[in-house]
Amino acid sequence: MTTGTTATDLTGRMLIAGTPVFGDGEQIRAIDPATGAELEPAYGHGGDAEVARACAAADEAFETYRATTFEQRAVFLETIADNIEAIGETLSARAHAESGLPLARTTGERGRTTGQLRLFAQVVREGSFTGARIDPAQPDRSPAPRADIRQRKIPLGPVAVFGASNFPLAFSVAGGDTASALAAGCPVVVKAHDAHPGTSELVARAISDAVASCGLPAGTFSLLFGSGRNLGISLVTDPRIQAVGFTGSRGAGLALTAAAQRRPQPIPVYAEMSSINPVFLLPGALAARAAELGGEFVGSLTMGSGQFCTNPGLVIAVDGPELTTFLDSAAEAVGAATPTPMLTPGIARAYESGVQALADQGGVTVLARGRESDAPHSCRAALLATDAESFLAGDGLDDEVFGSSSLVIRCRDAAQVREVAAGLEGQLTATVHATAADAAEAGALLPTLERTAGRILFNGWPTGVEVGHAMVHGGPFPSTSDSRTTSVGTLAIDRFLRPVAYQDLPAELLPSVLADGNPEGIWRRVDGELGKH
Amino acid sequence: MTTGTTATDLTGRMLIAGTPVFGDGEQIRAIDPATGAELEPAYGHGGDAEVARACAAADEAFETYRATTFEQRAVFLETIADNIEAIGETLSARAHAESGLPLARTTGERGRTTGQLRLFAQVVREGSFTGARIDPAQPDRSPAPRADIRQRKIPLGPVAVFGASNFPLAFSVAGGDTASALAAGCPVVVKAHDAHPGTSELVARAISDAVASCGLPAGTFSLLFGSGRNLGISLVTDPRIQAVGFTGSRGAGLALTAAAQRRPQPIPVYAEMSSINPVFLLPGALAARAAELGGEFVGSLTMGSGQFCTNPGLVIAVDGPELTTFLDSAAEAVGAATPTPMLTPGIARAYESGVQALADQGGVTVLARGRESDAPHSCRAALLATDAESFLAGDGLDDEVFGSSSLVIRCRDAAQVREVAAGLEGQLTATVHATAADAAEAGALLPTLERTAGRILFNGWPTGVEVGHAMVHGGPFPSTSDSRTTSVGTLAIDRFLRPVAYQDLPAELLPSVLADGNPEGIWRRVDGELGKH
Repeated sequence: MTTGTTATDLTGRMLIAGTPVFGDGEQIRAIDPATGAELEPAYGHGGDAEVARACAAADEAFETYRATTFEQRAVFLETIADNIEAIGETLSARAHAESGLPLARTTGERGRTTGQLRLFAQVVREGSFTGARIDPAQPDRSPAPRADIRQRKIPLGPVAVFGASNFPLAFSVAGGDTASALAAGCPVVVKAHDAHPGTSELVARAISDAVASCGLPAGTFSLLFGSGRNLGISLVTDPRIQAVGFTGSRGAGLALTAAAQRRPQPIPVYAEMSSINPVFLLPGALAARAAELGGEFVGSLTMGSGQFCTNPGLVIAVDGPELTTFLDSAAEAVGAATPTPMLTPGIARAYESGVQALADQGGVTVLARGRESDAPHSCRAALLATDAESFLAGDGLDDEVFGSSSLVIRCRDAAQVREVAAGLEGQLTATVHATAADAAEAGALLPTLERTAGRILFNGWPTGVEVGHAMVHGGPFPSTSDSRTTSVGTLAIDRFLRPVAYQDLPAELLPSVLADGNPEGIWRRVDGELGKH
Repeated sequence: MTTGTTATDLTGRMLIAGTPVFGDGEQIRAIDPATGAELEPAYGHGGDAEVARACAAADEAFETYRATTFEQRAVFLETIADNIEAIGETLSARAHAESGLPLARTTGERGRTTGQLRLFAQVVREGSFTGARIDPAQPDRSPAPRADIRQRKIPLGPVAVFGASNFPLAFSVAGGDTASALAAGCPVVVKAHDAHPGTSELVARAISDAVASCGLPAGTFSLLFGSGRNLGISLVTDPRIQAVGFTGSRGAGLALTAAAQRRPQPIPVYAEMSSINPVFLLPGALAARAAELGGEFVGSLTMGSGQFCTNPGLVIAVDGPELTTFLDSAAEAVGAATPTPMLTPGIARAYESGVQALADQGGVTVLARGRESDAPHSCRAALLATDAESFLAGDGLDDEVFGSSSLVIRCRDAAQVREVAAGLEGQLTATVHATAADAAEAGALLPTLERTAGRILFNGWPTGVEVGHAMVHGGPFPSTSDSRTTSVGTLAIDRFLRPVAYQDLPAELLPSVLADGNPEGIWRRVDGELGKH
């Protein structure tokens, strides 16, 4: 089934278990940040009643949905991807209008979104996510016989997903959290981000159509509109919700986490919150190509108006002429950078006040700003610098400024570079630029970076997160609320699973992944030995 | 190295990074619950200074300890096991004296403890716990090349372990939490349980001797004595501690969890707290062997004075003549049950008041009590019954009573059995007794039990938790604070690991588990395909 939806079809309605519902709360419209114009139609916020309705439907759908075969679930994910593609240009155009992100980017992001869904379909078919383990009975064991014990992972239950502002497709309604939760066997209730309601509605219909055409219970998916503080908290505290996926600000992530912990039954919250993604420029790399690094750095810094979780917000290097060359090159590139719209008026305001707050700190100088623009909500890139003493003594110099702002820390020597590294909060990424001449120093830094970040890059830039099997998009607090997981890549499915052991279960009741003879043909650990047995 | 320690060697000292330290806080002595006699020597409680010292040493040891090879770490775990065995009968005798548990039980528990350590040595050597994944570079990919991305799991950092009262060996100083944390590569700081300080000291010396003889940093292990409310909270909130393993009461577990969440950097707490382990007797099973089931049930209920996390505290069945037969048989067995000492005077008092609180609830009748005893701190088994309406309406009828107490719920019909099942809190186990005649009913119950419990047993009894690869000793809240894990079995190692991705890391800096050519010979996922490649 394809939707053939066009933008003029937009209704402003939530989609609760397949039923369109116009919320009777506050009405909001998307704003095109490039022009400041409001976009039709109006979207009505829902409230507690809609949360309860969506969660009840998700809970009711859970048993049926989690009992789907690998093939059924994989086809469902692929059908969602097909349906999203079938919307056609309408979708990337609407995402472009609602986000101010270039059309090429929203088109690319659509491909990332459908690719992610299809990758999780592969993960489901492969079956290892079930973590099947079998310890066969040993009836003759002495002093006591051993029972037959088998283990698999089952889905947690209905999952609440919060759409992220900065990825209106790939980390929103059918984004990574939704794809991994559905792959795990969990129904999903999405709270749309108010910045891109039209994009959300289009994608929600693509999912809902897939639910229907795959013959799944309608409650497998719902889309809600509402404020984070009201509907969002109501969603997280609904007793039927069993886990939460969130990407956004530290304040909002901590509020959701606290709400989840206050529940009579606390639940896991996977909040991806804030990161300034330190970049270490080691002396050999600076000696080899300081000016080039400056240009590449600003390319990463200004891409998408710097609105990436992995934007390089901190640069750390030993002071000296090579660093000056880097800074001159970077300052020139920042000064020449074309101002580009930010996602929302609020984000643009927060960006400017964040840059100002950094600049006002003792010991901080502004090295360069991007050009002024007459367009509203534009991001003027900002390059600032300070010395390590000020950074180590400072308060707030490591706060994330969401946008194209970066702070360079001049260090006295390699020991001070390591001291700054050791004092950093948890990060999504840490990047090292090094040559063979830097091997000793890079090796000395590595253990610290492993303790600090979820992903460590050499001689690259942190923006651009590959969706694959080995990716980790996560990291120690406060970059995320739970460092044991990732929100990008196939390992993300683990977030929504828990192990269950079955002792002496009659054969006819055993789930197929644990049945004798391995009918699903998956990898299983039998008495600790991995094999397709 | 062997310790050759005898009970007379006990010093009353903590062991902080290999150094004996007598705490200057409150002095406590173990009590033999079978006689009420105090046991020498006195143990001095430590405080904040000792916590800081142990945690600083653990943090300092971390980088060296986590860099050990699989073989080094496995040999260390095996050396601990050897050293524990080398203590000889002294250890099981002291554990018997301090816990009131039969000598045969503490001897068996010693075997379980060393077996656990050796099993984790196998897990370390096998290497899959590192979760190695490699997505090779695709330099020619269009539109953008793919970087080389590799993933492994690394240890979280120093772990705090709280000794449990009810397993003075297998879930105490060198118990499951310690074994799995050390296997993961985390230094461990143990807070000993005040009920068995001598056992704790003996085992701590066995570990410390292994640390020394294996050439590991002294801070790899420390043992502290102190109160949970003071030293325990201080330990959990020390910024160097990165995870917590705990087995004990719901109140204490929730207090530790709350303290960990209030930290500037919240950390995971794996608290195994309370469970009443429902047992469902289906009609076919009752028709086949009601009287036998009654006897077996009381065997499970009274073993170890009922002081197991998986003690069957709730029995659910449709009322009728077969259930009456079961109850008559069980009541007779309870009445004949020999009173056995409980672990501590406090536990014995809490047990009696817990039974009384249950008996005082509306609709509850006491069917049988065990014999009175002149011995102090004895457990008189208790069998109580109520009807489903009272249970569903009641408040506190599902509270755990730690000890040999169980409540039988008489249901009107199968639908009411399912209603009771659906309303239960999270449990470690759920047990079903069924015959082929019960297949439909058992199948209908199973999905509910999967959502409720971490382990589901058929035609057995929940006490006795096999240590293997497929075991899950965990479950939804409040049975544990984190249902995504287990505290028994090899999967427990996952609790102390987090994934890190390496992008374009120079070959000489890659950890060996991710190096080209698979020098460790472990299972790795390359482009999503599992193999020894």
